[in-house]
Amino acid sequence: MASADPNRAFMKDVKRIIIKVGTAVITRNDGRLALGRIGALCEQVKDLNSQGYEVIMVTSGAVGVGRQRLRYRKLVNSSFADLQKPQNELDGKACAAVGQSGLMALYDMLFTQLDVSSSQLLVTDSDFDNSNFRERLCETVESLLELRVIPIFNENDAVSTRKAPYEDSSGIFWDNDSLAGLLALELKADLLVLLSDVDGLYSGPPSEPSSKIIHTYIKEIHYQEITFGDKSRVGRGGMTAKVQAASLASGGGIPVVITSGFDSQSIVKVLQGEKIGTLFHKNASLWEPSKDASVHEMAVAARDCSRRLQNLSSEERKKILFDVADALEANEDLIRSENEADIAAAQEAGYETSLVSRLTLKPGKIASLAKSIRTLANMEDPINEILKRTEVADGLVLEKTSSPLGVLLIVFESRPDALVQIASLAIRSGNGLLLKGGKEAMRSNTILHKVITNAIPGNVGEKLIGLVTTRDEIADLLKLDDVIDLVIPRGSNKLVSQIKASTKIPVLGHADGVCHVYIDKSADMDMAKRIVLDAKIDYPAACNAMETLLVHKDLAKTPELDDILLALKTAGVNIYSGPVAHKVLGYPKADSFHLEYSSLACTVEFVDDVQSAIDHIHRYGSAHTDCVVTTDDKVAESFLRQVDSAAVFYNASTRFSDGARFGLGAEVGISTGRIHARGPVGVEGLLTTRWILRGKGQVVNGDKDVAYTHKTLPLQSGPLLLDQDSVKNL
Amino acid sequence: MASADPNRAFMKDVKRIIIKVGTAVITRNDGRLALGRIGALCEQVKDLNSQGYEVIMVTSGAVGVGRQRLRYRKLVNSSFADLQKPQNELDGKACAAVGQSGLMALYDMLFTQLDVSSSQLLVTDSDFDNSNFRERLCETVESLLELRVIPIFNENDAVSTRKAPYEDSSGIFWDNDSLAGLLALELKADLLVLLSDVDGLYSGPPSEPSSKIIHTYIKEIHYQEITFGDKSRVGRGGMTAKVQAASLASGGGIPVVITSGFDSQSIVKVLQGEKIGTLFHKNASLWEPSKDASVHEMAVAARDCSRRLQNLSSEERKKILFDVADALEANEDLIRSENEADIAAAQEAGYETSLVSRLTLKPGKIASLAKSIRTLANMEDPINEILKRTEVADGLVLEKTSSPLGVLLIVFESRPDALVQIASLAIRSGNGLLLKGGKEAMRSNTILHKVITNAIPGNVGEKLIGLVTTRDEIADLLKLDDVIDLVIPRGSNKLVSQIKASTKIPVLGHADGVCHVYIDKSADMDMAKRIVLDAKIDYPAACNAMETLLVHKDLAKTPELDDILLALKTAGVNIYSGPVAHKVLGYPKADSFHLEYSSLACTVEFVDDVQSAIDHIHRYGSAHTDCVVTTDDKVAESFLRQVDSAAVFYNASTRFSDGARFGLGAEVGISTGRIHARGPVGVEGLLTTRWILRGKGQVVNGDKDVAYTHKTLPLQSGPLLLDQDSVKNL
Repeated sequence: MASADPNRAFMKDVKRIIIKVGTAVITRNDGRLALGRIGALCEQVKDLNSQGYEVIMVTSGAVGVGRQRLRYRKLVNSSFADLQKPQNELDGKACAAVGQSGLMALYDMLFTQLDVSSSQLLVTDSDFDNSNFRERLCETVESLLELRVIPIFNENDAVSTRKAPYEDSSGIFWDNDSLAGLLALELKADLLVLLSDVDGLYSGPPSEPSSKIIHTYIKEIHYQEITFGDKSRVGRGGMTAKVQAASLASGGGIPVVITSGFDSQSIVKVLQGEKIGTLFHKNASLWEPSKDASVHEMAVAARDCSRRLQNLSSEERKKILFDVADALEANEDLIRSENEADIAAAQEAGYETSLVSRLTLKPGKIASLAKSIRTLANMEDPINEILKRTEVADGLVLEKTSSPLGVLLIVFESRPDALVQIASLAIRSGNGLLLKGGKEAMRSNTILHKVITNAIPGNVGEKLIGLVTTRDEIADLLKLDDVIDLVIPRGSNKLVSQIKASTKIPVLGHADGVCHVYIDKSADMDMAKRIVLDAKIDYPAACNAMETLLVHKDLAKTPELDDILLALKTAGVNIYSGPVAHKVLGYPKADSFHLEYSSLACTVEFVDDVQSAIDHIHRYGSAHTDCVVTTDDKVAESFLRQVDSAAVFYNASTRFSDGARFGLGAEVGISTGRIHARGPVGVEGLLTTRWILRGKGQVVNGDKDVAYTHKTLPLQSGPLLLDQDSVKNL
Repeated sequence: MASADPNRAFMKDVKRIIIKVGTAVITRNDGRLALGRIGALCEQVKDLNSQGYEVIMVTSGAVGVGRQRLRYRKLVNSSFADLQKPQNELDGKACAAVGQSGLMALYDMLFTQLDVSSSQLLVTDSDFDNSNFRERLCETVESLLELRVIPIFNENDAVSTRKAPYEDSSGIFWDNDSLAGLLALELKADLLVLLSDVDGLYSGPPSEPSSKIIHTYIKEIHYQEITFGDKSRVGRGGMTAKVQAASLASGGGIPVVITSGFDSQSIVKVLQGEKIGTLFHKNASLWEPSKDASVHEMAVAARDCSRRLQNLSSEERKKILFDVADALEANEDLIRSENEADIAAAQEAGYETSLVSRLTLKPGKIASLAKSIRTLANMEDPINEILKRTEVADGLVLEKTSSPLGVLLIVFESRPDALVQIASLAIRSGNGLLLKGGKEAMRSNTILHKVITNAIPGNVGEKLIGLVTTRDEIADLLKLDDVIDLVIPRGSNKLVSQIKASTKIPVLGHADGVCHVYIDKSADMDMAKRIVLDAKIDYPAACNAMETLLVHKDLAKTPELDDILLALKTAGVNIYSGPVAHKVLGYPKADSFHLEYSSLACTVEFVDDVQSAIDHIHRYGSAHTDCVVTTDDKVAESFLRQVDSAAVFYNASTRFSDGARFGLGAEVGISTGRIHARGPVGVEGLLTTRWILRGKGQVVNGDKDVAYTHKTLPLQSGPLLLDQDSVKNL
């Protein structure tokens, strides 16, 4: 889906629209009418008409239709001898005369089927010399539109004084594109749409991967760089003619969009302000430059800066973090006032309290953020760490080293403190970063981003961290799989699911957390009670909260189990049950075992033994965090060994499944994916590796010369990867 | 794109086809005609007609069209008082009478535009009582088809004796679906296509994610399980009626396909044998069960088996590998004879020599495979290894352990030995596996798969390793992102690129390897010559071969560089040059610096210094393997530190970039991705991690009770993850 283009907000005020349908839209490759596209176009026009738009059509195609028919007629009338002779090209005007009636009959029929009346208006260039004509034409069109009739214009090719429809480019208008532009000005249209066989104007041939569609044409920028496509297969025009006509009309104040006539909803999308096709607007050069390009460029710039960041010494990277921490504290008042403005706006807009609470930078928050940044700065440098050293052969040493992933995209909702945490993590781990925050926190995010990037030294570049402040949709960002290495969503399950479903970029996160606690018959039931209550009640909305309580069947109807269930109920938990527990305990049946309540509710079910608990978890769980409560070592080890989840716990609350509690320092997220990182993820989730091989001129030569030793070397000894300062001092 | 369905090979013999167009295809939601779809349908019929198919249409829609028109007419004729009264439902027959002429006029017009003649044939149920009628009808249709006229059938609703078109389901036919089925039998059609508003028959409501389209309907399997969708919005019929009509016609020997009338190419695709829609065929129950389901089931079964495999002791897993090795040796003759059959077939089919060579299991290969499996068996167990131990708090110990990824899909071309290597790796690492080999190695792959899986014990299950032997396209497998965790392509760059472009499953591999050697001005030129020659010539088609030689500008025109270039030319290397080198050396200009020659060719270019070499590599390289040749430590460290490639070499040939040479044991592949694994990947690329937490009943309780210690513990001490035997002996 294309996103809304903020520059096209004016579309909502459009009432009168001229639609020019190109020959390539109307005809098929074999020269016959493209009835599917024409039919769909009529349906679209009908819908616009019903919605109150005043629609005027300019149609091409008559010459093509006529040529097709005349060829057939000529063939029928030819003798075999005639066919041996060289065939003259058919007269263009004759073709137009024949084709015009067929084309109009078709439109009439189709519109009639849709309860719409249409009308034919054939004009010639010389008509427009007469100012009376122009006046009368406007009156006629106004009358037709008043009656909700669709005026369909075409050049009266058959009787025009033009030499041949294809060749003569003189006059007030010179093809249907320029006729459409002229009519747009004469009839004071609010919008002109030129339907073509391509999606719009490209910066190069549309077939080349480097060509990008230009969504907003700016003459000063695009006129030189554009390689216009070939002319349409049939008909005059082509892209050059379209750009010329569009520039003329838009210069006269009529916005023009060139878009595909192959998409049966393209005009509707244009009118909804979607960023499709190419818009020509007289103010376009005053607008901000196209956002598409800039997000891509932001990612490329972030990677360039990140390479410079990696090239700093560990001390220099550390110093940036200290500078960021200082800058945050120094600008606390400014940050606070911007945050208060966001809060006030959110309250005014009637956002729910929980959102406003997440949005708020509470007193002391800046100080605590600064403190955690300093802690991060003092952590061991995560990059350029040698993870493995091998002597491959005599004098040939291989090192596996940690290195930054590249460019990260963080999509976060509400919490402006997430921006600070993630930005510090990115700096510490040498990564470039694009941040896309929620609208509700825009002012907070903008000031925080500014404060942080101001603290980044010039030899790295502040573009290391880009804040995507435009109204670009997440969907656009998620397409940039060529320049973004990892997406980390920080927000609701819904956000994560949507992002996972709509990108080819790897996503680090979890869409759901259906966590289980299994109470074995051997369990210490006091311990079980403590764990179950904590797992459900400590923070019911957390992804690591218990959703399903599995209980060994022997515990059914024991006072100890009843005590646990009562405690849950007393704490306000709504208990649902699986089919077996329903019969024993009588709680309402749960809709599904896959359910994540994320609230004070849970499902209880009985299982036969630990194996059946494991099977249940594999079948219904989300492989997040699952716990066994038991005093039986065999049961514990079976559970720990077999449960195939990111985190598997023995006699401990599922709520411990968390980066901070795991001691990972800053938490990047919790991953239920199996690739790259799993479970609570610390800074190592932002790292990849590089292989460094140091030799003395060794060559492979069919593996005949080298005696491979493959000896593991200690990590400490030998030449380490030097930082830039040490390199300078070599 | 849908793949070809082997069960639909008969489509190529279809000549006479009946197309039934449902009301839902013909009408829009507002009851008006869906002109776009009707137009596209006529275009499709026209194309089929031109290609020599005999096309007969059965159309619905007249009643709907008539109702729409009569409502409007009635409204026009009503007084305001009339409109206050309850409105009678319009008479169905009157609607049919009004709608029929409009619908047929439309078809006539559209077909006329396409130079096709159409004809109207209105029949009633009672007509068919008369055997004379049936005879005459056939004759008429034959005559029309002879003249390439499209017969368009509809029930003559207006004069039929049926009570009301919507309600009366008695008679020889009872709706247009059954009329189409009846005509298919009477007119001896080769195929009946029922166009609907859904893609085909689903196992449940199409909106539910668990519903799957049934590509081949088998009464015994599907009749019970299918939840038929609701009836069409307009018109009789609905899915139940379609299945009934389709079952009848297919029982009579006419194959039927129910497919979407919303896809403007669906009939063409059906006739090309693509697996779209639902096929009804009288022999369907004799065919192999649907492959779609089975590939999905294979993946699920592989995961189940892998969990049992993981649950074995390390010794038991080791034993399986020894058994596999023994079985391969014991069955060497059988394997060899199947392999020879593949080779003979490939030679007969005229495959190129290099493919035949890759296909061949050379003498001694089985023995060497068995040997490498035994080596793998004796390797340290890669799973359940404790990678990290942390004391989270007193008595709360966290372990990060290695665990299998889950289910792998390996797509490999030619080499049957790849099957053996990958299968052994999967067993060693506890993963499930789906193998998709090339057609050319089918017999070799089948016997190898059989020998290996026979050696897998029953408590694991031979479905641990599935061989996809059907003609399913890779595209189908790549959709299974819910059950496959990683795809590893083993084949050409093209294969890898295609796979990467068409799946959401993570792919481990590399699409290209544009490797550079940079010769610094400080280089030992003899060493440079050795490295450059080896990097290019040792195996020019390898991904780690040098494609671009970057040379410090000061070396231009030195005898040492000339010597290197001469040696390359002497070895048969075609040298191309970049813009700078072109001026100095005069070699032909390279088309692009992005080029991977994969042959005896390379590009030479001069750069200013090591920094400009690094910039060149970042700009044009593929982040695979890049090498610096220098005697200057500063230059070396700058290069090693900054070049952001999977493997960065100093004074060693790029050809060392290889799992075996790196000492990784079995090589899974070389990854140019940055996520999960990078560069040459050994068995660790098939692993993920699990977090194991052992407590004594600790709870989080708002982090008020637990005193976090986060102390790193030695890996050796304390309770290790026990294997199943040890658990049993606890």
